Amino acid sequence: MSPLEETVAAISPADPAVLADARAHQERLTKPRGALGVLEDVAVRLAGAAGRSPAPMPSPAALAIFAGDHGVHAQGVTPWPQEVTTQMVGNFLAGGAVANAFAAQVGASVTVVDVGVAADLDDAPGLLRRKVAYGTADLASGPAMTTAQAVAALHVGIETARALIEDGARCLITGDMGIANTTASAALICAFTGTSPEEATGRGTGIDDETLQRKIDVVRRALAANGLEPTSHEPAGAAAGLRVLAAVGGLEHAAIAGFILGGAAARVPVILDGVIAGSAALAAAALAPAVVDHCVAGHRSAEPGHRAALDHLGLRPLVDLELRLGEGTGGLLAHPLVCSAVRVMHDVATFDAAGVTEKEI
Amino acid sequence: MSPLEETVAAISPADPAVLADARAHQERLTKPRGALGVLEDVAVRLAGAAGRSPAPMPSPAALAIFAGDHGVHAQGVTPWPQEVTTQMVGNFLAGGAVANAFAAQVGASVTVVDVGVAADLDDAPGLLRRKVAYGTADLASGPAMTTAQAVAALHVGIETARALIEDGARCLITGDMGIANTTASAALICAFTGTSPEEATGRGTGIDDETLQRKIDVVRRALAANGLEPTSHEPAGAAAGLRVLAAVGGLEHAAIAGFILGGAAARVPVILDGVIAGSAALAAAALAPAVVDHCVAGHRSAEPGHRAALDHLGLRPLVDLELRLGEGTGGLLAHPLVCSAVRVMHDVATFDAAGVTEKEI
Repeated sequence: MSPLEETVAAISPADPAVLADARAHQERLTKPRGALGVLEDVAVRLAGAAGRSPAPMPSPAALAIFAGDHGVHAQGVTPWPQEVTTQMVGNFLAGGAVANAFAAQVGASVTVVDVGVAADLDDAPGLLRRKVAYGTADLASGPAMTTAQAVAALHVGIETARALIEDGARCLITGDMGIANTTASAALICAFTGTSPEEATGRGTGIDDETLQRKIDVVRRALAANGLEPTSHEPAGAAAGLRVLAAVGGLEHAAIAGFILGGAAARVPVILDGVIAGSAALAAAALAPAVVDHCVAGHRSAEPGHRAALDHLGLRPLVDLELRLGEGTGGLLAHPLVCSAVRVMHDVATFDAAGVTEKEI
Repeated sequence: MSPLEETVAAISPADPAVLADARAHQERLTKPRGALGVLEDVAVRLAGAAGRSPAPMPSPAALAIFAGDHGVHAQGVTPWPQEVTTQMVGNFLAGGAVANAFAAQVGASVTVVDVGVAADLDDAPGLLRRKVAYGTADLASGPAMTTAQAVAALHVGIETARALIEDGARCLITGDMGIANTTASAALICAFTGTSPEEATGRGTGIDDETLQRKIDVVRRALAANGLEPTSHEPAGAAAGLRVLAAVGGLEHAAIAGFILGGAAARVPVILDGVIAGSAALAAAALAPAVVDHCVAGHRSAEPGHRAALDHLGLRPLVDLELRLGEGTGGLLAHPLVCSAVRVMHDVATFDAAGVTEKEI
């Protein structure tokens, strides 16, 4: 079996008996039932995913920032020059980006993975050189990647997850860098969820009305050029999922999909960042539906397609603060919330043990 | 001057020049403008409040849980017995409550302050015995506190803030424990914001429809008995604010108001927890309007009056996960987000320094 097939085969859904145990344990803790809102669901879900209650503490965390460039950049979908992808890789490696600051705050390691930057990068500590191609082809006129490239990028993600877990990570956080990658994300979301290009396409890191119209048109053309017009029927099955990913995804999207699969196969939870991760998770879920049980939606980005992706995955985001940066920043912000949710199950006393009277029913 | 007068006199609003500097600094950082959404506002506001940009890191944090009982408990506004206040104080001191788990997660200290528990508590490490009264009187039939009691409880909060800052805290987090205290909070919110009892009163830690109707009626009677019927005009000025606080507040509300004032006077930011803190902050803002510049709304609780309180204060909550626990749990969850927001201003490179190209305009 290929690493992809092996990984997909290793992914189990949440254990229903453990889910029930975790829910019952929540109800005995010294707090009113349901008083921790969404965080109770997180703790229960992660217990089910881990196969034991309480779930192990999701710490330490490791952020992987997958960087890639996009042929569609030539269509004028963003005001940022393509070289910013490479420059920001340098900024991550020098510790000067927002992702570095947020990672330092939560004690997460930062690994940068060149899976598809359109320039040669020098060796540097913290950089994994795993380039599959110098960027994708233009998705507006045909497939962005060959199937072989998509699979190679998936393998890069899987191997990155394995290596970080081997090094002790107990939570993976997805990150991305790739000028123009919200265009590919919008196309993936349309193809996987049936959302229209108008609804799925947003302003990314900040574009004017004219550029937004052009971007919507590019997404529409990409779907047509690749035979992926939105319908109410999502593409079913792993083969169709792989075809969609190769057709309109980016190399970093494919690597992130592999990273998610790699975490799930090892029963290590994966915190998804924003719209790039959300669209990559749609591809991962097409390849292995049970992967979603191992994912936490870190935040909801300002990008409109992200809501459609999360709704499709059935995930509720933890942070909702109008971020639209990427890099893994939204996932990093969510990490302490996820830890807090799980820690409750480890640390908090039960009514009986603490001698606290339960409410009269 | 009394400690209260001294504290109020020491509170300055945010410095407009520093606010402008902080905003300009944000725009030079290696991220698209505005890409950190609400967190950029937090970083700018805290710089203005501190009087220097970047603001000092709001760490370490100290949580103070102010505990008090309520005469209105006799009206049947909650299914929880009053003794749970005392039992939960024991649980906090033993480290078994959710607040302890969340505090451990973010590295915050926990101090429990008996400002009005209806029982004698033994000395214990982590407990400040500052009882002003054995609970309040029933606000449904007249003032819950005398003015002297309210001032004494404000002083307890001020002194707690001073002591924690003296011990090295650089961020204060409000916490509360008091069975029936959402009833007092609803009455404070009605009196300070003009919201109706129907809109301001919620299910607290979980009550049925019949109890909710009784609770709404109690709030209405409390306002009438104290001459505080909601109008479109909020009570103006410090004297009116103090009168409202004494009339329908709890001892822990008054202490939390003092705690907020004490933090602001020392230019140390205060993260507000949920509806109890929100209603106490309305009282603090009546006593010293500039106090709001030093506050961050940690979260929005599930309690409906909280939204009215935050809107009135002009604060946007950071965490919105349907928590309805109190204890300071929502404030603790927000602390890493606040730290992350401020850390960006310390750590992140500028476009010039990092050699990253800005977007074409």
